Amino acid sequence: MQKLKEKILSEGRVIGATVLKVDSFLNHQIDPVFTMEMGRELASRFAGQGVSRVLTVEASGIAVAAATGLALGVPVVFAKKGRASTQDAGVFSARIYSFTRQEPVDIFVSGRFLGAQDTVLIVDDFLAHGEALRGLAEIVGQAGSRLAGVGIVIEKVFQGGGAKLREQGIHIESLAAIRCMDEGRVEFL
Amino acid sequence: MQKLKEKILSEGRVIGATVLKVDSFLNHQIDPVFTMEMGRELASRFAGQGVSRVLTVEASGIAVAAATGLALGVPVVFAKKGRASTQDAGVFSARIYSFTRQEPVDIFVSGRFLGAQDTVLIVDDFLAHGEALRGLAEIVGQAGSRLAGVGIVIEKVFQGGGAKLREQGIHIESLAAIRCMDEGRVEFL
Repeated sequence: MQKLKEKILSEGRVIGATVLKVDSFLNHQIDPVFTMEMGRELASRFAGQGVSRVLTVEASGIAVAAATGLALGVPVVFAKKGRASTQDAGVFSARIYSFTRQEPVDIFVSGRFLGAQDTVLIVDDFLAHGEALRGLAEIVGQAGSRLAGVGIVIEKVFQGGGAKLREQGIHIESLAAIRCMDEGRVEFL
Repeated sequence: MQKLKEKILSEGRVIGATVLKVDSFLNHQIDPVFTMEMGRELASRFAGQGVSRVLTVEASGIAVAAATGLALGVPVVFAKKGRASTQDAGVFSARIYSFTRQEPVDIFVSGRFLGAQDTVLIVDDFLAHGEALRGLAEIVGQAGSRLAGVGIVIEKVFQGGGAKLREQGIHIESLAAIRCMDEGRVEFL
């Protein structure tokens, strides 16, 4: 998606070898109009596949997942982190490793919002090591749902998560795929 | 907002004296079409006030805040919780008490996304004790921004947060205000 690449080049900041900060439009401040465009683009890439639910994990994936769900006309479920006191007993859950927090995190989805009748599109803002997506795919499996695929805003190809998930036969669409990056330089695939 | 009240009555579940679960359309599963309607309604209640930023806190407020920002044509900033390793040094922050987690939580906003030139509309899914909103209003103050007001999906009036904030002169608009509730019963203001 050309406009996304341009925004990454003009607004993104590379920190060290692995961190790309795009918090001016994606994961701290949101550009709502552009988020809708990204949602429509992700929806179009999975059109006609019978998607009945969009699944993401809190927090940065929620806006683009909601935009994708709006474009597809289906509900959006966001997995929660930790165990809130108001949560049900009947839940699907997975343990993932958070490289941001540097600790394991449990993510979970109520059993009332995913089931064997569902075809699920997973959406998230970033694909790096693929931990969050592995956990979400595990939850889709626990629910007995069909996984249509994964829609990502920015894939950092050099961190290998995408390759691992594609090896498992998961269809991934990334709006921008970064082959490598360095202070002041971003190279797209 | 009549449709919201109807959804609360048909889909909401009251647990104990204070917990209202509306996770089928608001804070676990999102109904994207209805979220857009709520965003347009909140936007209309603050139209003509020169709002330049919508501010919320992760995670459940993000979808309705994004919808409000889209309707107003302004960026949306979501305050983060904790201190991520990728965060800037120059931040505005406030400590709030989380009744869900039963512990203090720090919320923060990068200094790049709020300033003296801004007029801010705070948006969140729930107003109960008002802790999150107090923290967000504190951040607006630190930034030197003008606070246009607070837009809330569901206010639980009996928990007193709204009264405390209104005493401070903050203009609050709630799409649904619950006077009291009990197992199986919700009474609107």
